[in-house]
Amino acid sequence: MTLEGKLLIGQQAISGQQTAIHAVNPATGVTLEPAYLGGSKKDVERACELAETAFNAYRETSLEERAAFLEAIAAEIEAIGDTLIERAMAETGLPRARLEGERGRTCGQLRLFASVVRAGEWLDIRIDPALPNREPLPRTDLRQRHIPLGPVAVFGASNFPLAFSVAGGDTASALAAGCPVVVKGHSAHPGTSELVGHAIQRAVAKCSLPEGTFSLLFGSGREIGQALVANPHMQAVGFTGSRSGGTALMATAQARPQPIPVYAEMSSINPVFLLPEALKARGKAIAEGFIASLNMGAGQFCTSPGLVIAVQGPELDAFVEAAGSAVKESAAQTMLTPGVHEAYEQGVKQLAQNAQVTEVARGQAGETAHPCQAGLFVTQAEAFLNDATLQEEVFGSTSLVVACADTAEVARVAAQLEGQLTATLQMDDGDLAAAQQLLPILERKAGRILANGWPTGVEVCHAMVHGGPFPATSDSRTTSVGSAAIFRFLRPVCYQALPEGLLPKALNDGNPYGVSRLVDGKREV
Amino acid sequence: MTLEGKLLIGQQAISGQQTAIHAVNPATGVTLEPAYLGGSKKDVERACELAETAFNAYRETSLEERAAFLEAIAAEIEAIGDTLIERAMAETGLPRARLEGERGRTCGQLRLFASVVRAGEWLDIRIDPALPNREPLPRTDLRQRHIPLGPVAVFGASNFPLAFSVAGGDTASALAAGCPVVVKGHSAHPGTSELVGHAIQRAVAKCSLPEGTFSLLFGSGREIGQALVANPHMQAVGFTGSRSGGTALMATAQARPQPIPVYAEMSSINPVFLLPEALKARGKAIAEGFIASLNMGAGQFCTSPGLVIAVQGPELDAFVEAAGSAVKESAAQTMLTPGVHEAYEQGVKQLAQNAQVTEVARGQAGETAHPCQAGLFVTQAEAFLNDATLQEEVFGSTSLVVACADTAEVARVAAQLEGQLTATLQMDDGDLAAAQQLLPILERKAGRILANGWPTGVEVCHAMVHGGPFPATSDSRTTSVGSAAIFRFLRPVCYQALPEGLLPKALNDGNPYGVSRLVDGKREV
Repeated sequence: MTLEGKLLIGQQAISGQQTAIHAVNPATGVTLEPAYLGGSKKDVERACELAETAFNAYRETSLEERAAFLEAIAAEIEAIGDTLIERAMAETGLPRARLEGERGRTCGQLRLFASVVRAGEWLDIRIDPALPNREPLPRTDLRQRHIPLGPVAVFGASNFPLAFSVAGGDTASALAAGCPVVVKGHSAHPGTSELVGHAIQRAVAKCSLPEGTFSLLFGSGREIGQALVANPHMQAVGFTGSRSGGTALMATAQARPQPIPVYAEMSSINPVFLLPEALKARGKAIAEGFIASLNMGAGQFCTSPGLVIAVQGPELDAFVEAAGSAVKESAAQTMLTPGVHEAYEQGVKQLAQNAQVTEVARGQAGETAHPCQAGLFVTQAEAFLNDATLQEEVFGSTSLVVACADTAEVARVAAQLEGQLTATLQMDDGDLAAAQQLLPILERKAGRILANGWPTGVEVCHAMVHGGPFPATSDSRTTSVGSAAIFRFLRPVCYQALPEGLLPKALNDGNPYGVSRLVDGKREV
Repeated sequence: MTLEGKLLIGQQAISGQQTAIHAVNPATGVTLEPAYLGGSKKDVERACELAETAFNAYRETSLEERAAFLEAIAAEIEAIGDTLIERAMAETGLPRARLEGERGRTCGQLRLFASVVRAGEWLDIRIDPALPNREPLPRTDLRQRHIPLGPVAVFGASNFPLAFSVAGGDTASALAAGCPVVVKGHSAHPGTSELVGHAIQRAVAKCSLPEGTFSLLFGSGREIGQALVANPHMQAVGFTGSRSGGTALMATAQARPQPIPVYAEMSSINPVFLLPEALKARGKAIAEGFIASLNMGAGQFCTSPGLVIAVQGPELDAFVEAAGSAVKESAAQTMLTPGVHEAYEQGVKQLAQNAQVTEVARGQAGETAHPCQAGLFVTQAEAFLNDATLQEEVFGSTSLVVACADTAEVARVAAQLEGQLTATLQMDDGDLAAAQQLLPILERKAGRILANGWPTGVEVCHAMVHGGPFPATSDSRTTSVGSAAIFRFLRPVCYQALPEGLLPKALNDGNPYGVSRLVDGKREV
């Protein structure tokens, strides 16, 4: 499998004509071959037209056909073998075990969506039978199903080169919904993207699906991404990345003649609340768990715990000391890209230079080209409440401890937080009342609330919510991880008194797909 | 029940300070007392703050408490008696039977949402139990429920003074979701709004709910509405009205530091396709049904059939002749407001002056102050395809027939339509193949597809979709009529490993509310 450095448009591999992208090995700073010449606006148009052409056939595949396609993608990714892992290691600096785990997660995610497609809950079938004798007016037969929105634009994320990239959660859920996908690959891992892109191409061919079901574009800068979102065939956008990148796509999508939804997962500092009893009973153990979570993947997770909130006192001092010691011992890890590293250094510098912030500890300096040197800082609640910059995400292994005068101030800090992906409570039995006070605040701030765990490590399951109020995401009504992610790409259509021959199969009386339905307002399994 | 002309903020009635609004009897042109002095930005802030204060208590009412509240509102509206109908007749020019029917629909809608609250499907409970022995990593307990977004701003619509106004579908579904509501009453029917607003106030008091659960504001111009949408406490917006009004609110909501969803139902011309066999077999009967639908409520429905599409020929000529005769006989009906009447006259004039459009017939001229004189026009598909202004909604009893060269041109016209609330097929058995060709196009254009009926008359039920792609609505993923409307005001929250004492009651193991749940991906009733 030699990398070709080409765009994958439908079943073709095409050379781009624009500025070349090269991956850089972040551990060594060495530029990796081949060059990926960026696509043009014409390439965007071609991919989007193919997706549009594919849509009607792809969206009416049977549940079984679509599920088999998702499983075929997983099998094709696995069949790439170690080539994929090695290329991803070179492009991201991430260790082998992490990438093998991420591959497992990616393929597991595709297979989960295959099971979700088969179960058919996403169809949200609702049948209100005719009531010809109702007074004063009869009711006619009304049936509803969900249909896919149309072709979807997906932006690969730098921090999950497999699980949130070409065949990641956005792609898997959009394809599961019945939407063709055009991916803009992340410029940091084009080789990994090409390998996975070819795997999807092969699955499309093996399953005899229209070629426009999937395309993969490359391009530097924001131009190609903006063109993709502005293209009239595109009907929704999945994005994981920076707040500035996400809000730029939101603006483009809203400025279209026909605005479309953007699902952007952007910025979160994932507050952790240390409640008094837990802090007293096991502050040191909590500190260890905290630093382990903070150091995971060099803190390059949307769910990294960037904020710790607690009442000041000797227990918090002891926690800070223990956490600081652990930070000092933390080995540097290679960051994903030169750009991520630079932004991290900038963010840490801004914290360190803030007069109201004290440095507790820094981790070990690194010897690779782009090392993440961990950091722990502390500030007072009053300073935090008066300085919005202290809520800015520092993407990497750095966290800020906010010391509060009392539990009332803890609540004030919680209430002033921006929207978050997660909020964590470290609590013991004696903290229950305090936790009950905080919960209503946290529910309005975050998509996921944890007790006595750590926010890193996002389970791919049915109850997961990887979402949250702005700016954590652009749409708090949705999740980008877990089976409910499919609902982002669907809309309801009602069919009134359609003859049997015209009614979509899923809505037929006999329930041919055997799916759960709401009949006259009653749930039938 | 003397009308006071006041704002209802929480449990208080407060005099506004801004420009006075007077309702006008559209049939007579007579100004109606009392004056409603508009609210100030301070009044908006006060109402929104009260809503925010009410939110946490209101959202955690039990299913039974919340359902009983919705039923109490219905009972209070009915208890107003004929005073409500007479005031609404005077303010809107709508006939008694229509308003009595609309009152029934409004109260039925509230009771439907009471049943929806009790059934608890809206909670979307998902439980993924812990798997402590899973390899390579254990899974912790994960549970999801939906919670309400927060306080909601609702804009009363002119054309449904009860069913889409102060206690209409948006209010009912937002309250059902657990969101306090601040209504901006429509300036055309302030007296009707005040009567219904007091009914809701009484229900709030009787159910011992926090007063901020409901407020009602009045104000002329767009200023108060924009202030309401921009207020940081507001978390979603329900609106039914013009395209310009809806898109202005969308822009305001997107420009907030924290953007919020706007559910604007705006503009639809509701195409009706006359398929060849049906047209041949029963063109005259279809013409009668069409004109009856067009004349209903003086065409002042979002679902009025403003466009008819068919293949040209003697059958279509006969249809147009029959429909034209029916239009000529149509008596004028009073329109809702001077503004609606003026916009209608303007729209008809624009059609009549289009060189590619031919007038088929006009209805009888009216003798009231603001009569709707029905209109039927015809054009060729080529002209329609080349002139986007022919897709502009004319709000009132006017429709345009588009004559196509063949069925391929019918499909081209369908494909070029903007987003619609509805699309209708008039078809016989022999038209099935033609209908099957059109269906995939229409599914992407409309929220509801009908066969052999008429789009006016929107059933309030579980399978209804009153929504559709832009510009029919701002968010095609939703419906503003029917039980699924509740989902507009909800977002998912995941609870990870929370101790039983902290877990929201609905998520407890014992399923205390007895609602349908998704457990480990399997539906349980």
